[in-house]
Amino acid sequence: MTYRAPLDDIAFTLDHLVGADFLTGTERFAEATRDTRNAVLAEAAKVAEDALAPVQRNGDLHPAKLEDGVVRTSPGYKDGFRALAEGGWIGIAADPEHGGMGLPLTLGTAVNEMMSSACLALSLCPLMSQGQIEALEHHASDEIKALYLPKLISGTWTGTMNLTEPQAGSDVGALRSKAERNGDGTYSITGQKIYISWGDNDFAENVCHLVLARLPDGVRGTKGISLFIVPKLIPDADGKPGEANSLHVVSLERKLGLHGSPTAVMQYDGATGWLIGEEHNGMAAMFTMMNNARLGVGVEGLGVAEAATQKALAYAMDRKQGKTPTGAAGIIDHADVRRMLMTMKALTAVSRAICLDTAVSLDMANATEGAERDYWKARGALLTPIAKAFSTDIGFEVASMGVQVHGGMGFIEETGAAQLMRDVRVTSIYEGTNGIQSMDLVGRKLMDGGVAARAMLKDVGKAASGPHADAVRAAREEVAEATEWMLRVNDINDRFAGSVPYLRAWATLLGAHYLNKAAEIDPNRAGLADFYMAHIAPQITALVSAATSGSTPLYALDAERLAG
Amino acid sequence: MTYRAPLDDIAFTLDHLVGADFLTGTERFAEATRDTRNAVLAEAAKVAEDALAPVQRNGDLHPAKLEDGVVRTSPGYKDGFRALAEGGWIGIAADPEHGGMGLPLTLGTAVNEMMSSACLALSLCPLMSQGQIEALEHHASDEIKALYLPKLISGTWTGTMNLTEPQAGSDVGALRSKAERNGDGTYSITGQKIYISWGDNDFAENVCHLVLARLPDGVRGTKGISLFIVPKLIPDADGKPGEANSLHVVSLERKLGLHGSPTAVMQYDGATGWLIGEEHNGMAAMFTMMNNARLGVGVEGLGVAEAATQKALAYAMDRKQGKTPTGAAGIIDHADVRRMLMTMKALTAVSRAICLDTAVSLDMANATEGAERDYWKARGALLTPIAKAFSTDIGFEVASMGVQVHGGMGFIEETGAAQLMRDVRVTSIYEGTNGIQSMDLVGRKLMDGGVAARAMLKDVGKAASGPHADAVRAAREEVAEATEWMLRVNDINDRFAGSVPYLRAWATLLGAHYLNKAAEIDPNRAGLADFYMAHIAPQITALVSAATSGSTPLYALDAERLAG
Repeated sequence: MTYRAPLDDIAFTLDHLVGADFLTGTERFAEATRDTRNAVLAEAAKVAEDALAPVQRNGDLHPAKLEDGVVRTSPGYKDGFRALAEGGWIGIAADPEHGGMGLPLTLGTAVNEMMSSACLALSLCPLMSQGQIEALEHHASDEIKALYLPKLISGTWTGTMNLTEPQAGSDVGALRSKAERNGDGTYSITGQKIYISWGDNDFAENVCHLVLARLPDGVRGTKGISLFIVPKLIPDADGKPGEANSLHVVSLERKLGLHGSPTAVMQYDGATGWLIGEEHNGMAAMFTMMNNARLGVGVEGLGVAEAATQKALAYAMDRKQGKTPTGAAGIIDHADVRRMLMTMKALTAVSRAICLDTAVSLDMANATEGAERDYWKARGALLTPIAKAFSTDIGFEVASMGVQVHGGMGFIEETGAAQLMRDVRVTSIYEGTNGIQSMDLVGRKLMDGGVAARAMLKDVGKAASGPHADAVRAAREEVAEATEWMLRVNDINDRFAGSVPYLRAWATLLGAHYLNKAAEIDPNRAGLADFYMAHIAPQITALVSAATSGSTPLYALDAERLAG
Repeated sequence: MTYRAPLDDIAFTLDHLVGADFLTGTERFAEATRDTRNAVLAEAAKVAEDALAPVQRNGDLHPAKLEDGVVRTSPGYKDGFRALAEGGWIGIAADPEHGGMGLPLTLGTAVNEMMSSACLALSLCPLMSQGQIEALEHHASDEIKALYLPKLISGTWTGTMNLTEPQAGSDVGALRSKAERNGDGTYSITGQKIYISWGDNDFAENVCHLVLARLPDGVRGTKGISLFIVPKLIPDADGKPGEANSLHVVSLERKLGLHGSPTAVMQYDGATGWLIGEEHNGMAAMFTMMNNARLGVGVEGLGVAEAATQKALAYAMDRKQGKTPTGAAGIIDHADVRRMLMTMKALTAVSRAICLDTAVSLDMANATEGAERDYWKARGALLTPIAKAFSTDIGFEVASMGVQVHGGMGFIEETGAAQLMRDVRVTSIYEGTNGIQSMDLVGRKLMDGGVAARAMLKDVGKAASGPHADAVRAAREEVAEATEWMLRVNDINDRFAGSVPYLRAWATLLGAHYLNKAAEIDPNRAGLADFYMAHIAPQITALVSAATSGSTPLYALDAERLAG
């Protein structure tokens, strides 16, 4: 796949739309100046364009395979991973003490967008490691940190997350995997886990599994779960991979997409593990990781949206078919092809701004204190489910429009447009389905009585001085009213019933806000804002209407009648 | 796949929503009474459930293959096709003179829905034959009719349509295939055609290709194109398949979906063909066929939507995960799962009503005369692009929601939910992309100065007396205003710019109309209408807003800036 990193758009978003310069005002991220950011991103762009994009089709055409219990990865993946690891990109946000770059998550997010665009299936491997690094940094003992972090950060070893079991998907608390104390400080882990992304590979010296399991005295539900690190090869006294642990890959799933990413069923048969965090408190550690992983998955959607947009634009510039009313013959000049391309471009730009805004908020929460920290923390928490659900939903919508722009060729796998659509589909499902993200938004994220939501609405209103300021303010009023409705209703199920359209309404409002701001700053970007206000922003009214209609219409048919 | 034909819903739609009883008032279709309809549909349901649904997964798991120039179809497809042919379902709407049942297209449409639900890939084979039968009935000589129609209707032979060439997709007039007069009344056809569904198979005695080609004196563009029937094996004096014609399958495409349906690149090297219709007037014959084929493709979308809804409902009834606020544990009781299932159910019901309403109009146009005929003909013409584009779009949307309802399992191919989504994706593209359908709606279908559109709006208003009569009338006003805007603007590109949202606004209004009517007649159906009015009908405002925003916002960025 040909891919060109959208460095200008990313820099514009960072510099002008999401206030990345706030970061340089903090002690922690003082060095993340515009120049530094641009230099870092330009380096990452090279890896994405030159090392990852060329192997993107390989994963689809030559899926990862399980041979004699060993996972064989797709051609070129090993070299792609090496280039990424050697550039230091796995540890971009990790602690320098263990070899990380210590850069803000904001930059990590921008880098991950590029890696996702270039080759989503391969990029999941370092993403899993990043999640594990974060969990270990926050919850592991110094000994574990010293042993594992340098290996994970350098890409010598890779990491995975093991949450799901067949009966415990969204309901993690229903898990059955068991842990027993060995008496020597280690634990013995037994159970089967499913959907383990990059459960094994043939390019890392060792694969480290973070596994949720229940100790004999662990209570039922999520409060009795502990977290363990369980390496494929048990490190010897020198920290080198030694004897094989009692675990293996049972099988790899045949999936709709991401064929280059081996999704494993993992079996643990009394495997040796080390506790991460406290006993019975594994969910806390897991949530640390999952929280930022949610943004990471949102960025996967964004990355595919950007890749699909570039691909469709290239095709539309090239393909001649019929004559438009203006006499042009390129399909890019047909009005509806234009409409699709503008929609793709606009949704991608909005997703990028939401993801980077979320990242800035999370970084600021880590780099400030007191009331300032509280403000940023609440803002990041509010934005996280929006970034995850909106970006992954539009990732799929944009990729599907990309298929449509290609016409009949879009249905032919050789074109590669369909692969993007297939690959991105799961991002709306994993790391908490988008329905669950929306429940988080109207549930947990409004439990502050609406403080964070109202503050965000205030930010949107304050900034509204561009060419579409009135439209932004009107849209803000609609979302504000829906928010007050959510806060007012007594039955939480009424909130849940409208949660998905409510989340989309928020994202659509934020889009109006960002694109209006972009138009104000750069006249060249006014066209996209004009389009957005005419074609996309009007959806807010319908979304708010659905969001505030309560649960009654959803249960108007009982389950039997619905199914019959 | 397990599939149960929704006979009650189909009968209710026919009897109460789309006026199928008008048909029994005509001389031509007097016999298509409710009892007859129900009896016919019950028979077809058996074939769909028992002969087609069981082989639906086979096509995906064991795609059609090209071996030594011969297409080998998927396991069980031969038997499925035989069952369908022996039931007489290929010729359901064909002339009894040649072995058809002579039943209204309305019934054929209902039957095709079931076949599409049960096994879309296989159902395309008889669908291609049906298109060919229709073209021959209208345009072939008596000799050709007598030779080909009985074979096609009985399924002894199958038919294909050959329009597309690499440089001539939506722009059929750009085709380069050549025809030369042989001097004996036959023609010699040379050229390459792509995207030929069921270009060959191993269960029919002969495969008959309808091929568009240009005679030496044919002018450029669509007006110089002629239509030919080109059989794989040339019939001998007794009408038996004889010597092989000079044509062959070059290759089969590797597609996103419909793996059981062989999509061929066909090569004609001076193949012998017979003229259908007049020289240079092939497009007229092709349009006859394509017009009804558009409804047929819409029904493919509907069929998959129904199948995906059934599949998701079955899973949601069975799967337990987490607790809802009401204490239930089945995912069907989670509000957002409910919202998805209700959306799937509602969109499917609306699509069914639109498709069957279109079919009734087309039948009535064939069974009436004078002003009555003009009314029905214009109504059918207006509804056809709506039926095609809306049904195929929602076919994909519903199938994608079906994947989402399955959670992580949805991404695993074994589940079968992803197959439905992959299979249906092309229906928005072929038989005229949905963008082209929308251009047809705002272009050709408004060329009567809005007579047909206003008549349809009047029908919608007249009928509005159910529980949501006010909402239907308000929605009608919005679509009426958009229609007047379309009729008013001078620049056709302003119409084109809003054509896709305009078509969707129409379909969404019709949905409100049908479901309100259903609620009025049957209190058990009121729940779906309540849901639709709260969650879906409000989209009309946003759609109309986008529909009437003109072309300027679409061209706000020039092509280079858009692509760069």
